[in-house]
Amino acid sequence: MALITRSAVEAMDARDPLAFCRAGFALPQGVIYLDGNSLGALPVTTPERVGRVVEDWGRDLIGGWNAHDWIGWPRRVGDRIARLIGARAGEVIVADSTSINVFKLLAAALDLDHGRRVILSEADNFPTDLHIAQGLAHLLGGAAELRTVDAAALPGALGPDVAVLMLTHVNYRTGAMHDMAALTAAAHAAGAVVLWDLSHSAGAMPLALDELSVDLAVGGGYKFLNGGPGAPAYVFVAERWLERIRPALSGWMGHARPFDFDTAYEPAPGIERLLAGTPPVLSLAALDAGVETFDKVDLHLVRAKSVALSALFRQLVAQADDGLGLRLVSPADPERCGSQVCYAHEAGYAIMQALIARRVIGDFRAPDVLRFGFAPLYVRYADVFDAVLALREILTTRAWDQPRFHTRALVT
Amino acid sequence: MALITRSAVEAMDARDPLAFCRAGFALPQGVIYLDGNSLGALPVTTPERVGRVVEDWGRDLIGGWNAHDWIGWPRRVGDRIARLIGARAGEVIVADSTSINVFKLLAAALDLDHGRRVILSEADNFPTDLHIAQGLAHLLGGAAELRTVDAAALPGALGPDVAVLMLTHVNYRTGAMHDMAALTAAAHAAGAVVLWDLSHSAGAMPLALDELSVDLAVGGGYKFLNGGPGAPAYVFVAERWLERIRPALSGWMGHARPFDFDTAYEPAPGIERLLAGTPPVLSLAALDAGVETFDKVDLHLVRAKSVALSALFRQLVAQADDGLGLRLVSPADPERCGSQVCYAHEAGYAIMQALIARRVIGDFRAPDVLRFGFAPLYVRYADVFDAVLALREILTTRAWDQPRFHTRALVT
Repeated sequence: MALITRSAVEAMDARDPLAFCRAGFALPQGVIYLDGNSLGALPVTTPERVGRVVEDWGRDLIGGWNAHDWIGWPRRVGDRIARLIGARAGEVIVADSTSINVFKLLAAALDLDHGRRVILSEADNFPTDLHIAQGLAHLLGGAAELRTVDAAALPGALGPDVAVLMLTHVNYRTGAMHDMAALTAAAHAAGAVVLWDLSHSAGAMPLALDELSVDLAVGGGYKFLNGGPGAPAYVFVAERWLERIRPALSGWMGHARPFDFDTAYEPAPGIERLLAGTPPVLSLAALDAGVETFDKVDLHLVRAKSVALSALFRQLVAQADDGLGLRLVSPADPERCGSQVCYAHEAGYAIMQALIARRVIGDFRAPDVLRFGFAPLYVRYADVFDAVLALREILTTRAWDQPRFHTRALVT
Repeated sequence: MALITRSAVEAMDARDPLAFCRAGFALPQGVIYLDGNSLGALPVTTPERVGRVVEDWGRDLIGGWNAHDWIGWPRRVGDRIARLIGARAGEVIVADSTSINVFKLLAAALDLDHGRRVILSEADNFPTDLHIAQGLAHLLGGAAELRTVDAAALPGALGPDVAVLMLTHVNYRTGAMHDMAALTAAAHAAGAVVLWDLSHSAGAMPLALDELSVDLAVGGGYKFLNGGPGAPAYVFVAERWLERIRPALSGWMGHARPFDFDTAYEPAPGIERLLAGTPPVLSLAALDAGVETFDKVDLHLVRAKSVALSALFRQLVAQADDGLGLRLVSPADPERCGSQVCYAHEAGYAIMQALIARRVIGDFRAPDVLRFGFAPLYVRYADVFDAVLALREILTTRAWDQPRFHTRALVT
């Protein structure tokens, strides 16, 4: 195989049908950002959008709720997200955090079928999903149980006591992607509902929740959706389930008529019943601007570029001597991965720090995983080339082996 | 009693020791804002503060979590709120919404004592507090029950099955203020814990949670704390309870070591265990700026001015012929009220619309309540004078009796 040259890679950028998207982001000069799967980049429209809502608040005060329909934003932004995940308008709403939304939907799933008490998940699911299930199980005492198995054992574990199969579509650590169609069908065949966490897949590939008859889903707003640090999350409930859900976190914004101030809770007829507290207007403005970066974008092209970026990264590592001593943690086939590639190295933390010092920003996941994410709207093929070049230099010269690269920061 | 003149009222403003605070807010010209108890006004520092955090996100990307200690903001802003409510640093954290926080603390209160299952509250509590309790009771089946009585019947209803007394300190509709000391002591004497919702009192008066041995509390960020529409809320847990709380909404940010990515939940040793999802950084920046408006402010002066504004409003109404046909809904003694005064009138909605058309902004609460709130940091005595003058003109000329004032908007 001929070595891949930078000019060959530049030609890939020149042909990229999504190249126009990068101008929609305010990326710092000289930084190669391969961590948009953790915190998406700043859209160029966001400062003005957030500034405007602050200005509206100052001028219109309480009247802003009506004048700007702030009260309708969770639904409006939810409808915008719906297209990205293959849902209908009215099946998605922006609310709270992913963790809180997992709680809402797990509680609902257990409430749908009183004969079943097991939440089935993957042992390597993202911690917060498991933590929330543990908290719910503790709260409900014997009425709920979290059962976790390895990914391969999931279909066999779908026993008659399973109420809900809860999975994250793309694994945060390895990038491994579940077969959503097959697992959803298996859960249904076993009489369970499915709850998918889309945090690492929405915005990186087309999704087809309705086509696959997915029941429930959640996802975060601050990764590929570019909503900003700690952006609100969203909830998806298939239309056929909506009326049967009696929200456990039954706050006033989920009431059928919140401004009647009835003391008896009555869930809103639509997806609004998944709301609890007052909508976070400033954060919603930023999330709206983030999701808008996808407005003219074909998600099939996004996925194609994501796979191509990942494949390029792998090829560049593989063509170095000894594969740079990195052990691939992600599935060998980029088609079976989300928009990231992960390698293990015993000095993983220090290597990532050395990369960051060279302004190549990836992520580290304990205990030893280097994670490189590809946000196809703004990552270029040349970025991947330059990132692997930096990685190669660090590894071949042991540039990571300096005390300053071993000091652990709080957030890694 | 001599009629109160505008020049007498102007003299009150000239003597007001809090008059300097008004310059800290970007209030629109010509508006009299008597709804800061629903949505606080915009602090002058907020646009720059929010703009800066957006800029930091763009420049520092994922590194912002460490570079700016975003991860520490919920605790930092919580510590700032602690002073306002008479709590120690480390007893307050900013998280989620008031509704979600009520759920967390009710679940914790029921978990503290397995022999008691009743949540006791007031029939006229703010709806979301009751809705959340209803949702929790539904979720727990027979293991929890919401019992509501009229305010006067509360002490007598503190039976041996009551796990938690949940009350809003200041009633959203009438402004009536509970005796926090007496009810907290009564609850404790009956073996229950107390959960106070401070949404309508924090920032309008000094509070003394620790001095009164309050167990649990919540409050919103967007009223007197000036955090902006849908600002995040806060949670208070008395230090003595912290270690005994096993959070029901056990998200990863409440984990002892979130970035170890352990799949087994282990609560953080401190108040951080009340966190669930990722902190909403943009909203936290705005809330921080909002709470900072109290930094040089003596809350005893705030309360004194609040009572004086309320008393002035009442006197001005009372000195008009026939009290303008308004029926006082608030307690007769301003000292027994929060920072608002409320009147009922059968045409309440239209009257408020007519006031708003004259740029006097109060609030309407179904079915017939006109609510006027006094945020002592920026409401002047002259504002109260001019507001009552406008109200008087509208009522004496029946200016409210026009079709345009009867059209109901969604948010009232």
